[in-house]
Amino acid sequence: MPVMSIQEMNSFLAEHFPQGEKFGVLTGLGDAWAEMKLPVDDEHLRPGGTVSGPSMMALADVCMYAALLGQIGPVALAVTTNLNINFMSKPLPGSDLLAKCSLMKVGKRLAVGEVWIRSEGSDELVAHTTLTYSIPAERMG
Amino acid sequence: MPVMSIQEMNSFLAEHFPQGEKFGVLTGLGDAWAEMKLPVDDEHLRPGGTVSGPSMMALADVCMYAALLGQIGPVALAVTTNLNINFMSKPLPGSDLLAKCSLMKVGKRLAVGEVWIRSEGSDELVAHTTLTYSIPAERMG
Amino acid sequence: MPVMSIQEMNSFLAEHFPQGEKFGVLTGLGDAWAEMKLPVDDEHLRPGGTVSGPSMMALADVCMYAALLGQIGPVALAVTTNLNINFMSKPLPGSDLLAKCSLMKVGKRLAVGEVWIRSEGSDELVAHTTLTYSIPAERMG
Amino acid sequence: MPVMSIQEMNSFLAEHFPQGEKFGVLTGLGDAWAEMKLPVDDEHLRPGGTVSGPSMMALADVCMYAALLGQIGPVALAVTTNLNINFMSKPLPGSDLLAKCSLMKVGKRLAVGEVWIRSEGSDELVAHTTLTYSIPAERMG
Repeated sequence: MPVMSIQEMNSFLAEHFPQGEKFGVLTGLGDAWAEMKLPVDDEHLRPGGTVSGPSMMALADVCMYAALLGQIGPVALAVTTNLNINFMSKPLPGSDLLAKCSLMKVGKRLAVGEVWIRSEGSDELVAHTTLTYSIPAERMG
Repeated sequence: MPVMSIQEMNSFLAEHFPQGEKFGVLTGLGDAWAEMKLPVDDEHLRPGGTVSGPSMMALADVCMYAALLGQIGPVALAVTTNLNINFMSKPLPGSDLLAKCSLMKVGKRLAVGEVWIRSEGSDELVAHTTLTYSIPAERMG
Repeated sequence: MPVMSIQEMNSFLAEHFPQGEKFGVLTGLGDAWAEMKLPVDDEHLRPGGTVSGPSMMALADVCMYAALLGQIGPVALAVTTNLNINFMSKPLPGSDLLAKCSLMKVGKRLAVGEVWIRSEGSDELVAHTTLTYSIPAERMG
Repeated sequence: MPVMSIQEMNSFLAEHFPQGEKFGVLTGLGDAWAEMKLPVDDEHLRPGGTVSGPSMMALADVCMYAALLGQIGPVALAVTTNLNINFMSKPLPGSDLLAKCSLMKVGKRLAVGEVWIRSEGSDELVAHTTLTYSIPAERMG
């Protein structure tokens, strides 16, 4: 079971990422998983009118961060050490993006997870990400 | 030799990424390479006061895009299919970031390059990225 | 539905990889997925008595190859263009390895899949791989 | 300066990888770099008569291992946690493969390096790999 509620996590993210709502909103948090939604607006667009790759990477990164902190508590200094993303199809124009993270490993020093990204209203995968976070030896809280 | 000058490429990027200057400024363009600088401002910061990972991914992505288009001309629809990034050290607080892309392959359908990112005034690597772009069958221009 | 049966695929793999049984045996083949088993023997061991990383990469690579060819038919010249693997825990000593591939995209030119590897008799993930295959313009068969 | 000579490292690799010569031979070892050669024989071939992808991944993995141990000493239990490889062109048929590793970071817990692979007698890149090794808290030797 996660050690933080969705409300606690959203408050934590808002505090630590003042510009964070542009990265997405946490919509689900469970045992080793998290779900976020990225409301699409002009700031995320790239040529062609679809959400930019960096916006999706940011979404995946925060989704993994939320899933991980849901398991180990608010360790603000956990940092991404590796991110690998495959872009597979264009997002639906005008649709929000949905991200789901599943943690594959939560070790003492490293955590590994994957994040699938789709457009709301579509089953087609837009992007897939695997991420590694390094967990600091001394935890806060 | 690149088929576009720095001035032409900066104009092209500005046209196609209206929000693009926040991704960085092209400072060098040569045969299968490009260099960019990301002036640091509040928009790029993450907890701890350093540039966020997604800002670095965006910088690497645009740097590869510029290096590639420098070789093949303004193919706006070339798209990233894979990006892998390793974060190695914190950027120097308050320093701009410098990115250098070297293309390793420019094929008919795929191009592969790598991008090293450092803080201005430091030799330490902040991040390293490898990227694959898919080149559309029909080119513009 | 896959266009080849397990028997046809195992025959195809045996023909094209004469040294292939050391890469594993196909145990399941379905719609956009495949399962393989790698019987552990001395040839795969690394210091510490566990299966080597390269043996797992080979297993993942062949598992994706089987899943892909199950969808598009025996295109022997499909080639891996990118492989990303995270090693998460040591395999159980003396246990065979099980791999499951799920295809995430099968496009005209590129296919992307992921492969999870576990030890038989354990739920813990040993490794996770994402792979991209390039599909040649002209298909055999 | 590396803390081990080429001779010491080759002895160490031969001891810890009894099947190791098939992974390649160390031909150079310097400050944060290593070079290996993979003599091509039938065992490494895949359909089409070229060296298999897994053989190249094994070559890159051992080359990074040698470069890292050259810096930190014979820590046999350093393990690969992430490997990302892009395959860019076919090796020359009948030519040995040459690998060069450059370490980008050697931290207390993680080391990151990249490995370029070419065919002997050609400048074209065959493959490029980035790797992360986890360094155990307690070192041997």
